[in-house]
Amino acid sequence: MALARYLPVLEWGRGYNRTVLTNDLVAAAIVTIMLIPQSLAYAMLAGLPPEIGLYASILPIVAYALFGTSRALAVGPVAVISLMTLTAASAVAPPGSAQFIAAALVLAFMSGTMLIAMGVLRLGFLANLLSHPVVSGFITASGLIIATSQLKSILGVKASGEAMPELVTTLIANLNATNMPTLIIGVVSTAFLFWVRKGLKPMLIRLGLKARTADLTAKAGPIAAVAVSTLAVVLLDLEAQGVRVVGQIPQSLPPFTVPLFDAALWQQLAIPALLLSVIGFVESVSVAQTLAAKKRQRINPDQELIGLGAANVAASFTGGYPVTGGFARSVVNFDAGAETPAAGAFTAVGIAIAALFLTPLLASLPIATLAATIIVAVLSLVDLKTPRHIWRYSKPDFAAMAVTVLVTLLAGVEPGVIAGVGLSLALFLWRASRPHAAIVGRVPETEHFRNVKRHNVLTDPRILTIRIDESLTYLNARWLEEFVLEQVAEHPRLRHLILMCSAVNGIDASALESLEAINHRLADAGVKLHLSEVKGPVMDALERSHLVADLTGKIWLSQNKAFAALLVAAEDEDVPRVRDDPWAARGLI
Amino acid sequence: MALARYLPVLEWGRGYNRTVLTNDLVAAAIVTIMLIPQSLAYAMLAGLPPEIGLYASILPIVAYALFGTSRALAVGPVAVISLMTLTAASAVAPPGSAQFIAAALVLAFMSGTMLIAMGVLRLGFLANLLSHPVVSGFITASGLIIATSQLKSILGVKASGEAMPELVTTLIANLNATNMPTLIIGVVSTAFLFWVRKGLKPMLIRLGLKARTADLTAKAGPIAAVAVSTLAVVLLDLEAQGVRVVGQIPQSLPPFTVPLFDAALWQQLAIPALLLSVIGFVESVSVAQTLAAKKRQRINPDQELIGLGAANVAASFTGGYPVTGGFARSVVNFDAGAETPAAGAFTAVGIAIAALFLTPLLASLPIATLAATIIVAVLSLVDLKTPRHIWRYSKPDFAAMAVTVLVTLLAGVEPGVIAGVGLSLALFLWRASRPHAAIVGRVPETEHFRNVKRHNVLTDPRILTIRIDESLTYLNARWLEEFVLEQVAEHPRLRHLILMCSAVNGIDASALESLEAINHRLADAGVKLHLSEVKGPVMDALERSHLVADLTGKIWLSQNKAFAALLVAAEDEDVPRVRDDPWAARGLI
Repeated sequence: MALARYLPVLEWGRGYNRTVLTNDLVAAAIVTIMLIPQSLAYAMLAGLPPEIGLYASILPIVAYALFGTSRALAVGPVAVISLMTLTAASAVAPPGSAQFIAAALVLAFMSGTMLIAMGVLRLGFLANLLSHPVVSGFITASGLIIATSQLKSILGVKASGEAMPELVTTLIANLNATNMPTLIIGVVSTAFLFWVRKGLKPMLIRLGLKARTADLTAKAGPIAAVAVSTLAVVLLDLEAQGVRVVGQIPQSLPPFTVPLFDAALWQQLAIPALLLSVIGFVESVSVAQTLAAKKRQRINPDQELIGLGAANVAASFTGGYPVTGGFARSVVNFDAGAETPAAGAFTAVGIAIAALFLTPLLASLPIATLAATIIVAVLSLVDLKTPRHIWRYSKPDFAAMAVTVLVTLLAGVEPGVIAGVGLSLALFLWRASRPHAAIVGRVPETEHFRNVKRHNVLTDPRILTIRIDESLTYLNARWLEEFVLEQVAEHPRLRHLILMCSAVNGIDASALESLEAINHRLADAGVKLHLSEVKGPVMDALERSHLVADLTGKIWLSQNKAFAALLVAAEDEDVPRVRDDPWAARGLI
Repeated sequence: MALARYLPVLEWGRGYNRTVLTNDLVAAAIVTIMLIPQSLAYAMLAGLPPEIGLYASILPIVAYALFGTSRALAVGPVAVISLMTLTAASAVAPPGSAQFIAAALVLAFMSGTMLIAMGVLRLGFLANLLSHPVVSGFITASGLIIATSQLKSILGVKASGEAMPELVTTLIANLNATNMPTLIIGVVSTAFLFWVRKGLKPMLIRLGLKARTADLTAKAGPIAAVAVSTLAVVLLDLEAQGVRVVGQIPQSLPPFTVPLFDAALWQQLAIPALLLSVIGFVESVSVAQTLAAKKRQRINPDQELIGLGAANVAASFTGGYPVTGGFARSVVNFDAGAETPAAGAFTAVGIAIAALFLTPLLASLPIATLAATIIVAVLSLVDLKTPRHIWRYSKPDFAAMAVTVLVTLLAGVEPGVIAGVGLSLALFLWRASRPHAAIVGRVPETEHFRNVKRHNVLTDPRILTIRIDESLTYLNARWLEEFVLEQVAEHPRLRHLILMCSAVNGIDASALESLEAINHRLADAGVKLHLSEVKGPVMDALERSHLVADLTGKIWLSQNKAFAALLVAAEDEDVPRVRDDPWAARGLI
């Protein structure tokens, strides 16, 4: 049983039978057809030779099938992670060079071991730091950068840079070198692929195909574009006219590779590896959860870290580059009827066959067609609805998203993620450091206490009740001291201060220290501190502290009892006092 | 009025009269006597010539008097900030060298501008990141390091290092070079100063002095140690026997200095400057708040940032080094009757007179006596009670403190602070990412809903109510999805899920997205999502979202109404359904 926790295959493998096998095989065939052009395209997007995309789609899938918990997730190269790989490895060596390929392997290995470590140490919660607006903004901005970067292949010109300003300027500077045949192939392919996506399925349905069959047939559209454009290049000898093609791809299974162990390189790639691990994990888990929920299945996020980590380690030993669970291919896998991770293993076999036998057919595939595949795929990542919703719902969340988009576009993917995460965290800490608190009074003829600003309630100048709507932690401990002392300074006749703790779910050591400081300072000012409606677990903790003994006032079970009793007590002790405050001495209060 | 916010002197200056003047002058005289040896000692602790300690006690005090809001805070060199200055500047140049002194000036300038910027931008809440256990652990560890580092002056040997391992090993290696006369002066001074602290005041009271007078007289003890040990050196010609003395101190007012503008140096000192700014601010504000509360006065933390910033900028232009509000001297100032910041300005005049006329008397002051002053002062920083209290109260807080102490002792002050802040934040985020939630049911014959684990309550297999005891934010949005889907997977007959939001004070955009995802996923599984007891402000925000329209269930004002109505609805619609789940199909659920 313990082993099954780390090897989910032991669980689903036992119920495997012929029906499940058939479903898995059909799904695998469809996903394989979809993956071949995509793998080549994403590898080229990452600045790597195309065959590396195929290699990254073989063993990593098998590794995920053994260790992952999602039954439909399809792992392999994806657009955003390819862009992040390009950015990170470009800092080490020029794209396409041997050192660049070595850096991609190291990235996959580091990312894999980081993910496994996070899974074993149950650190998956760190992915929470990527808020929805940040991820959404980052994906949109990455999609725009990727689409822009692919324009160079559609135009047949050179352009460089990992952020918009450099990309756009180099693209414009080289516009006059546009290659016409390439442009035609690129534009026609793009238009065709857009039509496949939007118009083919309805047409097939009109032609009498069932909706599901039409949907899955439409997924094979890119293969048609690949076949037709390759044929066009061969028949019209377009290579002689300057159309760049994929070229010879070695006919081979993935090679055995060992990531380079070089301390300086590892140090340089550590942050990028961490960022792409976490981004990949967040994307992958959200896809896996969506698909699992459709069948009331569960995924285990900590085990997902291990599954994705194993996939990346596998990529690093088989000539690949960083991978994660892809959205589009997982949905296709699911819709095609995949029931277990075995479908992934069969997909791996399909890609391996392609790597062994089909690569010669791809030598004359124009790069413009691959660029068209990428552009059509990534433009669906660009999400213009979410920003409008977030703007309407929450301005701070919108600010986090806007900063992520702008920094990603202007400075690149790594600064973009870091800025977004940093701003989200700062906003969160800022809000956590000034929680909502209200001065409350008793609603007449009831035992309820409500905000004096919103309700007509009974109060007494000698008794002040503050209700704090948040747990007390080190982030708001200083605020608590300031807020309470400010209120006391504003209420010169005050004798008793009650902190109503009905919404306080916890008090940490810093907040406890602040409560003790407040207690002492109020004692200096002649005011007693009381607590009311302290929750059970909070009271259990307070019993282990000095506060209970030191408290100048009492801890009351109910706010109503506290107020009633203190009202009587204040009446008894209400004699004129000499005031410390010079203003009071002059009768100004 | 607006000007008075930034120049508090305009406020207290108007009420200034002869009584207040007298009180301020008396306090200033006492603090001046106390500050002279302390300023020299702390400058030497920081690796700087002793006169720099005097310079740092003149204009910074005046700057704080103009801009600060505390009426009793005494600003100047303090032990922990001196240690941090030593550590930071040592990374640039050897202690005592001209570059080292220049680095200290730059640290003061950077720290000053950082503090002012934080004050103007209202970023004081960032100081909240230093939790009480981290600050307490850091101060204790710093105290131990400082005391150990001063042993070298007591023994008259050489030792180096900013963390314990190097300090202790170099000290032991040089033990055989111990200078006897120095050791005698050091041990006698230390014993005398400890006695002054513990035994002199009771003795003076027995001799008939009033408690307050006895207390203030005892504060002059260090001056006696300085005078006697200096006389001993002169009369016995101990310098010839190897006793190291302060030496010639220039007789002058603070020089006008300009901090070096060197980009590389600034970059190197940026993190240390930030750390010592924040540590200094946290210490200073806590002293200021304690003293202000005693008189029911208020300080303004954002304005305190500006006051301390101005003091540091002043230090950087007058040959000083980083300063902050000191605990001991502020308490003395307060106890001696200081009523306004003018007391600080008079102290500044006192120190200026000392710098001009008294420095020749200090040439033969043995360094061992200054070391004794420091040891006695910092050992009171070492706090062994707090760790025990924190251990009893909260294990995570204790872990943060223990890590801060250990890393500070073993690796130095900067890694210590960073490790403590990092661990506190990680623990906080971890807790925030898994809030408390309970499945609740109805207490029989009431309208109350309580935790099913703690109370004997009514539930229904078709209706599940989850009460979440925390605001929903991006940190727990993913947890929410997982928790809800897990519960749904465990309750196969479920038709209606109610999220009881009575303790939810806010829902951010990420959590909203998760609620929408939960809504869709539950719809796929045939379960309706309801919300109950949504607070007013939260409902206002939800009205601006799509969730209200998309929700498969309803939003109920009261949990009791929701449960009652859904019970009736579930009865009506309770027909057998085909289940997706294969286990259910096999009758296993």
